[in-house]
Amino acid sequence: MTQSFHLVILGGDGIGPEVCDQSVRLLEIMQSNLNGVAFELDHHSVGVGEYQRSGEALPQSAFDACLASDAVLLGAMGLPNVRYPNGKEIAPQLDLRERLQLYGGVRPIRLFHEDDTPLKGQGPGDIDFVLVRESTEGLFYGRDAIADLDADEATNLLRISRSASERVCRLAFQTARRRNGKKTVTLIDKANVLSSMVYFRHVFDEVAKEFPDIKADHVYVDAAALFLVRRPQDFDVMVTENMFGDILSDLAAGLVGGMGMAPSGDLGDNAAVFQPSHGSAPDIAGQSIANPIAMHLSTAMMLEWLGHAETRRAADALNGAISDVLSDPTQRTADMGGQLSTVEITDKIAAHLSRRL
Amino acid sequence: MTQSFHLVILGGDGIGPEVCDQSVRLLEIMQSNLNGVAFELDHHSVGVGEYQRSGEALPQSAFDACLASDAVLLGAMGLPNVRYPNGKEIAPQLDLRERLQLYGGVRPIRLFHEDDTPLKGQGPGDIDFVLVRESTEGLFYGRDAIADLDADEATNLLRISRSASERVCRLAFQTARRRNGKKTVTLIDKANVLSSMVYFRHVFDEVAKEFPDIKADHVYVDAAALFLVRRPQDFDVMVTENMFGDILSDLAAGLVGGMGMAPSGDLGDNAAVFQPSHGSAPDIAGQSIANPIAMHLSTAMMLEWLGHAETRRAADALNGAISDVLSDPTQRTADMGGQLSTVEITDKIAAHLSRRL
Ligand SMILES: CC(C)[C@H](C(=O)O)[C@@H](O)C(=O)O
Ligand SMILES: CC(C)[C@H](C(=O)O)[C@@H](O)C(=O)O
Repeated sequence: MTQSFHLVILGGDGIGPEVCDQSVRLLEIMQSNLNGVAFELDHHSVGVGEYQRSGEALPQSAFDACLASDAVLLGAMGLPNVRYPNGKEIAPQLDLRERLQLYGGVRPIRLFHEDDTPLKGQGPGDIDFVLVRESTEGLFYGRDAIADLDADEATNLLRISRSASERVCRLAFQTARRRNGKKTVTLIDKANVLSSMVYFRHVFDEVAKEFPDIKADHVYVDAAALFLVRRPQDFDVMVTENMFGDILSDLAAGLVGGMGMAPSGDLGDNAAVFQPSHGSAPDIAGQSIANPIAMHLSTAMMLEWLGHAETRRAADALNGAISDVLSDPTQRTADMGGQLSTVEITDKIAAHLSRRL
Repeated sequence: MTQSFHLVILGGDGIGPEVCDQSVRLLEIMQSNLNGVAFELDHHSVGVGEYQRSGEALPQSAFDACLASDAVLLGAMGLPNVRYPNGKEIAPQLDLRERLQLYGGVRPIRLFHEDDTPLKGQGPGDIDFVLVRESTEGLFYGRDAIADLDADEATNLLRISRSASERVCRLAFQTARRRNGKKTVTLIDKANVLSSMVYFRHVFDEVAKEFPDIKADHVYVDAAALFLVRRPQDFDVMVTENMFGDILSDLAAGLVGGMGMAPSGDLGDNAAVFQPSHGSAPDIAGQSIANPIAMHLSTAMMLEWLGHAETRRAADALNGAISDVLSDPTQRTADMGGQLSTVEITDKIAAHLSRRL
């Protein structure tokens, strides 16, 4: 009996399609090596290109497909120079997070080789943590507001709800339980100043009681930024508000090679979207020099998340194949000082993948 | 004719008094070597200790003295374990910023020796920038709100006003003009998502026109956090919202040795408070192991800011003396892996200071 997984593939804008294509290649290699598992790949056009064609960055048919899918694999969306009439960037990934209630932005940070980090004295195994970013509210709650540039002031509301806090904190504790780490969740907040953060901490502490096997800790967001550059090895799972998570996850990606190395999963109870943390990088699009590693790591996260024994085996094989390639620091794309193209580095990963499957 | 400067000295809590005492020692050395300048030192008790004694962390008499002063030198305030009945920390530095309208949190970041940074390949001169943090509004605007822990949600308002944005952006451009740097001000915002940040950027761009000799640039806050760890040498002057500035300034301090190396000036039109960026560190208080460098650098900022030719000469001499001592990486306090006490490292600075004056 074959279990078929309905995967929605959204290439998106800029380098999105070209890195996404490479992950699709790897999925096809896996498919022919897995037992009793089939991938049904359902491609849709989304993003700025689609907005320019049809007037909608995220057409209803694409949205419906995401909702009905087992998982979504997304390249990148948005182009800084194409904006809505109100001046804001077209960022349908934010709409996806909100409309699909993808409340948990899971961003694993892992160093593969000491040459990839700007930090002294850190090797593979030292930097290995997961940041879980609340992705439906926080300061992004106010993102639909439009500024009146002639007014005397502009405001945005930071909202922290009990329900959203509970679910994201639970996700963080479950993540810590599953990981082979320090079994610790650190809440990153600003409870010394902001009442919404006092509230967030209160809910976190309540949820922590459901996980007596996991240590619960708190660090202020300013101190967390400093600790990340001075002793990143202290962290296991961090959980935080949307805006704080946005900042700290980019910082964290910077510690392991940059945005080209940072995968993510936006998880909800009814849908999940996996995508590299990087943007569409239009300046290098179409040249096949983009780093596909974050895309491939996101694909591995997706396979793990699908939860079938065979997709998990595939996830392990893919993560292993990526490690194999990155253990040689000369095997890198241009963003990391290397010479390999998007396709070449994927070829190398594909070779290891086939061997490992 | 002697010009007398009225300096309010607020030791505060924890390690505050002991580092502050050492800066006072240096001020006394200067005093006897400067021509036509006198320092009138006016000590006041503030902070948690004062709150426990009198019920007020910032007594009116201390506040009035600050307002009437030429400048305020502050050690540190607050103790994490002593809180107001509503659970929030006692942080009268925030009250000072608000009540004295100290809108510009100026935080210079400078690397003295390559051993002091966790980053590879960065030496003195590479990391040398100033972060200017808006300090009267932004997300801290909502800091008086009290959370109802039984409610379904908690909120805080982020406020950006034209007047506060204009004055802090002007301060940033003036800082860039005065500095011997890249003559560039970078606004750190999140204008791709938040309308208040679109507004902030709009005001920034308007103010930029008043400074045609200075380059104006924009970077999103998430990217800024990444750039700080990957190419901090790119920055000259950064200006940003209160909460973003809080996070990025701690991160930046982490790049040059930690909070013990990070001075600050909270500047307003009618008052100025100079203090180390670190907190009161009660765990090491009273042992004379605290790092006084941030305090001494803050003192130098104050002397520079006082604007008299002789106080500027004193500032240069003090900065030079600190550089002299830090050029030998074994001359460090415990937080930086050294063995010197608070007093011993100040002794060494004092010796160089006397020679340089
Ligand atoms: C593109 C942008 C809107 C987005 C965000 O701020 O969430 C990105 O930075 C991210 O981290 O996914
Ligand atoms: C102590 C705290 C309230 C303060 C702040 O958040 O502003 C501190 O972190 C700072 O940066 O001065």
